[in-house]
Amino acid sequence: MRAARFHGKEDIRIENVAEQKCGAGQVRVAPAYVGICGTDLHEYLGGPTFAPIKPHPVTQETIPITLGHEFSGVVTELGSGVSSFSIGQHVVVQPTIYCGTCQACTAGVENVCYNGGFIGLSGGGGGLSDSVVVPEGAVLRLPDNVPLDIGALVEPLSVAWHAISAAPLTNDSVVLILGGGPIGLAIVQCLVSLGTEMIIVSEVSKSRQQFARNFGAHHVLDPRTNDVVAISKELSGRDGPDIVFDCAGVSASLTTACTAVRARGTVVNVAIWEKEVPFNPNMLVFREAKYTAVLGYQRKDFQAVIDQIAAGNLKPSNMITSKIQLDDLIEGGIKALIHDKESHVKILVEVGGMNLANPAAVH
Amino acid sequence: MRAARFHGKEDIRIENVAEQKCGAGQVRVAPAYVGICGTDLHEYLGGPTFAPIKPHPVTQETIPITLGHEFSGVVTELGSGVSSFSIGQHVVVQPTIYCGTCQACTAGVENVCYNGGFIGLSGGGGGLSDSVVVPEGAVLRLPDNVPLDIGALVEPLSVAWHAISAAPLTNDSVVLILGGGPIGLAIVQCLVSLGTEMIIVSEVSKSRQQFARNFGAHHVLDPRTNDVVAISKELSGRDGPDIVFDCAGVSASLTTACTAVRARGTVVNVAIWEKEVPFNPNMLVFREAKYTAVLGYQRKDFQAVIDQIAAGNLKPSNMITSKIQLDDLIEGGIKALIHDKESHVKILVEVGGMNLANPAAVH
Repeated sequence: MRAARFHGKEDIRIENVAEQKCGAGQVRVAPAYVGICGTDLHEYLGGPTFAPIKPHPVTQETIPITLGHEFSGVVTELGSGVSSFSIGQHVVVQPTIYCGTCQACTAGVENVCYNGGFIGLSGGGGGLSDSVVVPEGAVLRLPDNVPLDIGALVEPLSVAWHAISAAPLTNDSVVLILGGGPIGLAIVQCLVSLGTEMIIVSEVSKSRQQFARNFGAHHVLDPRTNDVVAISKELSGRDGPDIVFDCAGVSASLTTACTAVRARGTVVNVAIWEKEVPFNPNMLVFREAKYTAVLGYQRKDFQAVIDQIAAGNLKPSNMITSKIQLDDLIEGGIKALIHDKESHVKILVEVGGMNLANPAAVH
Repeated sequence: MRAARFHGKEDIRIENVAEQKCGAGQVRVAPAYVGICGTDLHEYLGGPTFAPIKPHPVTQETIPITLGHEFSGVVTELGSGVSSFSIGQHVVVQPTIYCGTCQACTAGVENVCYNGGFIGLSGGGGGLSDSVVVPEGAVLRLPDNVPLDIGALVEPLSVAWHAISAAPLTNDSVVLILGGGPIGLAIVQCLVSLGTEMIIVSEVSKSRQQFARNFGAHHVLDPRTNDVVAISKELSGRDGPDIVFDCAGVSASLTTACTAVRARGTVVNVAIWEKEVPFNPNMLVFREAKYTAVLGYQRKDFQAVIDQIAAGNLKPSNMITSKIQLDDLIEGGIKALIHDKESHVKILVEVGGMNLANPAAVH
């Protein structure tokens, strides 16, 4: 079968590889649509970072590994003992890989598993292939009214949903989002679906500012020309936003987040940081604010997002700014994002699972 | 009357000053015992910091101001309309000064009032004098079974109580405290009074280590020779302490706190920071931990501490390592703490309110 495999920095190859076996408790999925993520770009440009160069503690694999961790697909085979799914069902895969035995896992926080990783980044196959075998527990069914292309958006929306779940959000919350990239925009949409009173986005890029407005942000600020702290305090009608999401992860956004937030407010960091930055905790002290960090998502976040989409509260189709074929992954996907990422929210790769005439006949 | 007044760096004078008037809604207190605080030392050594050099927004005063914000005393006069107290009652004063109109105050977080300060630091008189006039709402009655010297400990214990209230403490919590100064030791005692399962203290000074043991810490580590992160994780029986209190406020304690804490654990910063430090938020990200900052206390913290002492759960008398007279404030108090602070937890200044034969006759 075809698979997009990461061999190292700037080296992704569409190759012919053997299919994985579908064992007990496993489900084979033919990926339909696969989103390209910032993490994929980071691996391509500067990796391997997530991709294992020594055997991954759970998958035991090393590079090359198959990419693709944001994906929907069609069930094509059931391992023995699998009873929750049937052939031909449309599904999404929650790609978290976890050991189940470390103290994060045993505490129920498997999304920070100390041995963890992701299907599509850490071995265990990936969505950018004609077939991937995953544990039954990683699969969630898509309702009939949620198309497969929308299904591929569940993963990034779940990052947003998980982040929002860490904040004390109420209907009348004033929320400031720093950074209007795919995750910041996903947070905007999830907040809109929850009926949030005021959503303010700070973003440099004009095209991303427009995406933010289109997705329902009430106010969009440009941090190069606007005093984001002062204006967000003024707009809030209180001494600052109740909640600030830092989706930028740079020194300036940390300072803005910690000085804009109201007394007893909450900063939620959604970013992964590239390096240490200067920090004065007094920023939080003098307003008794909280700084909370989140990572990834849990199955319940995926289910909540699917439910919100199925209920019509969350309408993320405009996140899809391009659809390409697997053969065009490097030029039309990876490089398009590298050279013009601000024109895109999400590029989906059509792998083909949705075209299977008879999924049961595949194997 | 006598008053210890701060005129500037290394310039505290015992002077004769006029008494404040006791107006409507105010209570005159004759201070009995007054604790010397680290903040007093900072003002003496490097101030004015808190002490106002331009008119304070609430008190309208500038230096010189009377010192003393940790104190107990005896009620000697009631302004018109005051009905909650009577002459001769033993009380403590909650010294928070707040404007009541800023958005922190209107949100009920008057302890971070954007115009705030403290009686004994920001004008409005102070405990280190023969008489101080304070708002009725700043006064709390001491039960008969709580002596006046113990009453002077309520303020530092309330800092600890307030910090603990910001943490999700349960009976089986494992708690790590970084820094065994007066506030760290107050946290130890408050945790002991609450029956906390495991209390670990990290402290460099041998004498403070001994204080921590005496006050009930279960494990005391020396960060110069112990790997505090590894040992606290091992002791915790989980992937780290549930709660870490940073009472040190230095770069090393920030890193230790954020890497020791368990997945989804809470770091509570109790320190005031002198400068920016390097910080990598990924420390919190990869365990989805929270970093919470607290400042000062509220009236309810004072009341809770008084109740705990009165109930016999909190027995802080061993915090008092010396008692001096007002005339000896500089040599026996301020300088003793500067030159030998690790031998002391709390030096109390006896001002004399407890010796009043007939408080009503004073005015």
